[in-house]
Amino acid sequence: MTSCYQILKLHLRFTKILSFGFVNIVLFLALTSCALAQENNQMVRFAKIKVDPLKLVEYTAALKEQMEMAIRVEQGVLSYQAVADKSDPTNITILEIYADSAAYQTHILTPHFLKYKETVKDMVISLELVDLDVIGFVRKPDH
Amino acid sequence: MTSCYQILKLHLRFTKILSFGFVNIVLFLALTSCALAQENNQMVRFAKIKVDPLKLVEYTAALKEQMEMAIRVEQGVLSYQAVADKSDPTNITILEIYADSAAYQTHILTPHFLKYKETVKDMVISLELVDLDVIGFVRKPDH
Repeated sequence: MTSCYQILKLHLRFTKILSFGFVNIVLFLALTSCALAQENNQMVRFAKIKVDPLKLVEYTAALKEQMEMAIRVEQGVLSYQAVADKSDPTNITILEIYADSAAYQTHILTPHFLKYKETVKDMVISLELVDLDVIGFVRKPDH
Repeated sequence: MTSCYQILKLHLRFTKILSFGFVNIVLFLALTSCALAQENNQMVRFAKIKVDPLKLVEYTAALKEQMEMAIRVEQGVLSYQAVADKSDPTNITILEIYADSAAYQTHILTPHFLKYKETVKDMVISLELVDLDVIGFVRKPDH
């Protein structure tokens, strides 16, 4: 009985390992193909903006309002990360991620984006848009 | 006895409400200051790297290895986002976020970072580090 029980235990253990491995492989393939599909369609880019120093506070407020509204109401706007050079806060860079280029085309016709463009038209000295390919994004799970 | 018991119960209830409120206020203040402290302490920057076109594949592999290892083993490395200009993939930018400058100082002494620096020393044409202030980060909850 004891050896039978041990064989059963071993069998169960191997079944668990095998099924766990199988589930892992299926999950891995599913996640990989999802990630690749998403990566290929996403539109990622930098908006590099030089702001009039006298209008920096108003510009920043308009930018924040636009970003927060777009993330809230537009399905295809995935993330905005806006930063300013410490050495010169009038040099602003936004890392923008859209679900795809159609999402971006939709975005630039929204009332909040048009309002932003109108508000900041005399605040922005220059704007450079740089399309990007992702090499890798990694982050802590809670970050 | 009954009224005494009721007063005691009432007293206990108010004490609970008061202490609950007090605990909440303390928690709120602690969490707010934590969040602010975290924001203020985080070290955010761009690493702008020009890579030798002949060594781009090897460079990218070394960069990914470094990023993935750092995120996995270093508590203070919060995120890396590495991108390349579509028009010129030898222009690479990494948006790096560390918990604080101490976390960064620890990072640059780790074996994986030293290995990366040694591996890429003849692949990198130029490196510019730009310290940044965050204007705003917004993203979809599932992104």
